[in-house]
Order: sequence, then structure tokens, then C-alpha cells
Amino acid sequence: MLTAARTDNTLIDVPRGLANVVVAETKLGEVRGQEGFYTYRQYSAVELARTRSVEEVWCLLLRGSLPDGTGVADLRQAATGLSSAVREALPVIALAGSGDPLAGVRTALSLEGAATGVRPLYDLSPEEREEELIRLAYAVPVLNAALYRGRAGRDPIEPDPALGYAANYLWMVNGTLPTEQQADALNAYLVAALDHGFNASTFAARVIASTGADAASCLVGALGALSGPLHGGAPGRVLEMLDEIGSEEKIDSWIAGQIRAGRRIMGFGHPVYRTEDPRSRLLKEIAVRLGGPRVEFALSVEERIHVLLEELKPGRQLHTNLEFYTAVMMEAIGLDRALFTPTFAAARVLGWTANILEQSADPKIIRPSARYVGPKAPVPVP
Amino acid sequence: MLTAARTDNTLIDVPRGLANVVVAETKLGEVRGQEGFYTYRQYSAVELARTRSVEEVWCLLLRGSLPDGTGVADLRQAATGLSSAVREALPVIALAGSGDPLAGVRTALSLEGAATGVRPLYDLSPEEREEELIRLAYAVPVLNAALYRGRAGRDPIEPDPALGYAANYLWMVNGTLPTEQQADALNAYLVAALDHGFNASTFAARVIASTGADAASCLVGALGALSGPLHGGAPGRVLEMLDEIGSEEKIDSWIAGQIRAGRRIMGFGHPVYRTEDPRSRLLKEIAVRLGGPRVEFALSVEERIHVLLEELKPGRQLHTNLEFYTAVMMEAIGLDRALFTPTFAAARVLGWTANILEQSADPKIIRPSARYVGPKAPVPVP
Repeated sequence: MLTAARTDNTLIDVPRGLANVVVAETKLGEVRGQEGFYTYRQYSAVELARTRSVEEVWCLLLRGSLPDGTGVADLRQAATGLSSAVREALPVIALAGSGDPLAGVRTALSLEGAATGVRPLYDLSPEEREEELIRLAYAVPVLNAALYRGRAGRDPIEPDPALGYAANYLWMVNGTLPTEQQADALNAYLVAALDHGFNASTFAARVIASTGADAASCLVGALGALSGPLHGGAPGRVLEMLDEIGSEEKIDSWIAGQIRAGRRIMGFGHPVYRTEDPRSRLLKEIAVRLGGPRVEFALSVEERIHVLLEELKPGRQLHTNLEFYTAVMMEAIGLDRALFTPTFAAARVLGWTANILEQSADPKIIRPSARYVGPKAPVPVP
Repeated sequence: MLTAARTDNTLIDVPRGLANVVVAETKLGEVRGQEGFYTYRQYSAVELARTRSVEEVWCLLLRGSLPDGTGVADLRQAATGLSSAVREALPVIALAGSGDPLAGVRTALSLEGAATGVRPLYDLSPEEREEELIRLAYAVPVLNAALYRGRAGRDPIEPDPALGYAANYLWMVNGTLPTEQQADALNAYLVAALDHGFNASTFAARVIASTGADAASCLVGALGALSGPLHGGAPGRVLEMLDEIGSEEKIDSWIAGQIRAGRRIMGFGHPVYRTEDPRSRLLKEIAVRLGGPRVEFALSVEERIHVLLEELKPGRQLHTNLEFYTAVMMEAIGLDRALFTPTFAAARVLGWTANILEQSADPKIIRPSARYVGPKAPVPVP
């Protein structure tokens, strides 16, 4: 239960970064960091990733139950394709955002929201909110693919309404149909990465939603937060690290150098999990199934990190996080590094929609406080 | 002082909306809601609004002291004008965002950030962060004016480096030089509206900044939050209300109807101030100096609300907030209603920059928690 507000406005001190502070009640799921698992609603997220399509799981988060016989057809109906304004501006946006994975989709989604009529969520019914959120979320994979192709001077490829979310994504990126194994691997990733507690991007979406703003404002803010280096949304850096290490015989000296220098190792460590990250375990299985020399090399690196850490810093635990095997898996299904973070966004945007929808049902604005620690005030203006 | 983090991850319950919860220590200022005043650093904000230019006060918030003899020349040096990408896309953005006051500037600022090279704040020195933030903040008034003119099919007007922030704004909007009284009135508003505690848009900017994201991501998220109806950034609605009331003889019956129906009265009430809003008092003085029939009418409405409230709901206090006389003042200096909320953004963006800069000095990501209140979990996936 949330506590009562203090009518005298006395301040309430909490840990930095709001760690463990309950900002809302949620029915969307739970991250049990100590126990090493997380749920979407009442189900294990990893179990869902093994057995269900990402659109079914999205439906579960949005509506509270897995879809019945009618499937996800009504979700897909909300996908309207890109507005003419976005199509017109796409070449400029693609070129402008070429140096950054998310700046282009942030801009294009903002324009999509503007072009299709801004409707504050505050003014909408729950059903209208859901429709608006689904429509904009479906635009993210379309924009990812169109911007990626646009930067290379290639025309966008229209989504195929007969394909699922994962297969469609690979189709729009490559212009060729993926194998079933490729689509399944991406689907499992998208489910696993769809939501994960009140991380900074999800929380940013909720803060913006708490003002009653339109869906695009919430999603654009969340995309901005996701782009931050501390959010951990940069799986491409894992491959850069593997490239830097180079070969099996250099693994030990490279790792020992990083550990001795106290430098961060990409793809290792998580602020919440004290155990192995359950997402990492799943992605590792998928990567191993896909196979290939890069996968073998990544397995060696992981193994040697555990061995060398025990030698050099006995007792210290460091587990792979979502990023490590995500990078390896994405490369194995043929996704370019420039698409790693946008693909993360194409998963997480689905979780944001459910969080925004839940937050919109609570008409309380999120407006915290701060403790003033500057010089004694007020003094006269000089 | 912030409390220590809980290593066992047990949850900490706080009031809804994080009311009075200290999310950071700040040297930027303080809102003393019980006492009815607020400060920027150690000075009364209202006193600054009466005596200083908005760029001087911005400098105070960014750097900790009012500028000395050299003035604000180095702030203005960071203003680089719009990128060619934004100039090219501006007609499409202006048209797309025409139905909403902030969707256009949100999109154009996102594109400006993308076009000029995305640099995560995490990777920059404090000086580089400041320069980046100043550059993008100066783009907001330029974009406001250019989008406003663009929607009417008119060409943008370049900023005049010889003019201050307020006079420049009116120049870029109208293409004519404002009177000194007009520029002074707008300057006082801009100072008064520049910052105000950890409101939802400022907090959204801080959450995004805590991930180390680039300046545009932070500002674009804040613009989204500012656009929310519950943020109170819609002074245009006050004029709509005054239009609806229509004439002096209809004031009493209109107000009594609203009070009896328990409906909200635009421009009245604030979640923090229990006294008169100090910003409202200032704006009222400025409006009275500008004069005119609309100002007289607004004064009558305010007076009658106090009288009728005492009659109908004895003991209940309801004071004008920032919006009420802002709307009247903006109309009196010739700003179109479509520019009211963008002008609020042109003030608040300056405060956001100082907040983002302060937040960036703390490398702790803002990542709160939630309490799961759904069905018992986990259960097997059907």
C-alpha cells in the first residue's frame, strides 16, 4: 500500500535513484531480483518467451489475459502504416539521425504522433488510449526498418499483414523472408525484453503519462531514456568487445587486464539481479542453437571471465546480463549492429504501452520533491 | 540527506505521485508552498523577475551566480541557429503539428538534436554538457516562432543577436520590434516561469538525464510532459473561459454554476501553494500596467470568484495560479493563443537545462520500484 500524503509538506527521504521506492502499484508483473526471475502478470516471462508469440504476450500485458481463439487480429488492425508526413520527411530524418541508433526513430515517432492528430490520453477512454498506443507501437519496427534502409539509400519495405511481429521485422529490414529459426529466435528475444519493472525508460513513460499527455509524448520520452548509456541499451558494445579481444589465446590476458584495472566488462552485471540474469540464460540457449564461431567464442569468454574473476577477486560474482547473448544472437540471425538498440526499442515499446495504459488509469500527476542544499535563502538580489 | 539503499531490496512505500519525496538534493532553488514564495538559488524568483533579464537568471541557474560585467555574451555564442535538416523539414513538421501547441517543437527539437550529432551527456565534460544544453534551449524560441509562422505559410525570421531573449522572441514571431513595455512584460513572465521545483516535466528531464542520454532526449521528453493537460501548461483555456463568460453581468451566474457543479475553474488552484501563487501576483501587476478591457474583465472575474466562493463554500480558499494572468498578459502583448503553451516551454526549457546539468553530475540512474498487486505468481503458462 502507498502511504498517505503529508499535508504539511514535510519532506520524505528515500535512497538515491529511488531504489526500491514504490511509485505505483502494478498488475503488469514483478522482477524478483533476489530469486532470479521475473513475471509478466502471473506468468514467468521466460516461460512465455519459450512458448508464445510476442503479440500474444503484448496482449497479455495490455489486457490481462492471453488471447483466445481470435488471436491477435484486433491488435494488428490498429496498425495503420506510416502517415504521409512521415513518409515525406523520412529521408531527412534518416540522414540526420545516422550517427545514433535511436535519434531517428525518436524524431519520426514524434512526427507520426503530430501528423495523426494529437489526442491527450487524459481526454480519451481506456479503449481509445489502448488503440492509440497500439497504433504508435506498431510504427516503431516499421520506422526502425525504414530508417535503416533509408540511411543506405534503399526504399522502405511495407509490413506484410500475414506475418507475425518478429518475422515481419526481419522482412522489413532485409526484404527477404527469415527462416523459422531466425524468426523464433527474435520472437523469444522480443518477449524476454518486452518489459522489466520500472526501469528508467518505463518510468519516464509513466511520468509523462501522469500529466495526461498524448501517447507519442510518452513513447518519445521513453525512447530518449532508453538511448542513455547507463540504461544498458547498447548491445553493440558487446560485439566491439569481442572484436577487441580478437582470438581465443588473447582472452585471458584481456580479461585479467580489465579486472585488474577495475574496468567494466560489457554485457556483465545488473543492478537488480544478484543471481544469473534469467534473460541471459534464455538468450544463451537460443544463441547456442543458432551456433557459429562467434557463439563459440562468446561462450569461451564467459567461461574464462568466471574462472579469472574467482582467481583475481575471489567471492565476487559477475553474471552476463541481457546484452551479452543478445548481441551474439542478433548477429547470428543477420541483424546489423546498427539495429541492435532499435530492436531493443521495438521490444520495450510494447511494455511501455502497457505501463502507460496502467498509469493513465491513475489521475495523479507524478511530481516529487527535492531538498534544497544551496546557500541560505532568500537574500536580496544584488 | 538521502537515506541508504536497502541491500535486501525490500520495498519502501511513499505517497502517491511521489508527493514530498526527495528524489535529489538541489542547489537550484526551493519552492516554499506554505510560505508562498520560491527561490532561484538564494534569491527570490519574483524579485529576479522584476529586476533581471531572463538570460541573466538562466546564467544564475546554470552557473550559480548572476553574470558579471561580461554579461550573457558567452551564452548567446552557443546559439548556432537551426540545422539545414530542420530547415528542410520545417514545413512538413509545421503542418503535421498544427493541431497541437507542442508536438511540432517536440519533433523539430528532436530532429535538431539528431542532425547536429548525438552526444550522450554521459560522455561529455560539464562544460560540453552546458554548451550542448544552451545550444538546444536557444533553438526552442526560434522553432516556436518558425513553426507558428510556417503554419500560416510565412517564412521564418532569423533571430537578431543584438536583442535579448524576450525581445528576440517577439521579433521572430511578429517580424516587428516590440515596445520596451511589451518586451519587459514578457521578460518578467519568462523569469517567473523558468523553473519551479521538480514538476513533472522537469522530473521527466531528470529521469532521462539520469541514463546519460543526450540533451535532446532529455528536453524532448520534458516537452512531452509539459504538453499534458494535468501539467497545467494550457493558459489558452483561461481566455476560452473568459470568452465563455462573455460580459460583466454574466460573471456571477457563470461562476456560481461552476462552483455548484463542482467543476474546475481554469487558472485557479495549485497543488503546492496554499497561499496566493507568488507568480500570479507578479503577472497580475504586469497585466494591470499593460491595461485594456480584457484585463479589467479578468480582475472582475477574480474578485467575484473570491466573493462567491466565500458565500457558497465558506472557508474554502481558491487562488489564481500562474496561468490566469499569464493568459491575460500574453494577449495584451499581442501573442496569439496558439503561442501560449510554446511560450511557457520557451521559459521552462531554460530551467530544464539547469536541472539536466545538475542531474548529470550524479551518475546514479533513477530506477524506482513498484508493488505487484496482481494474481499470485508464477503460475504455469496455459
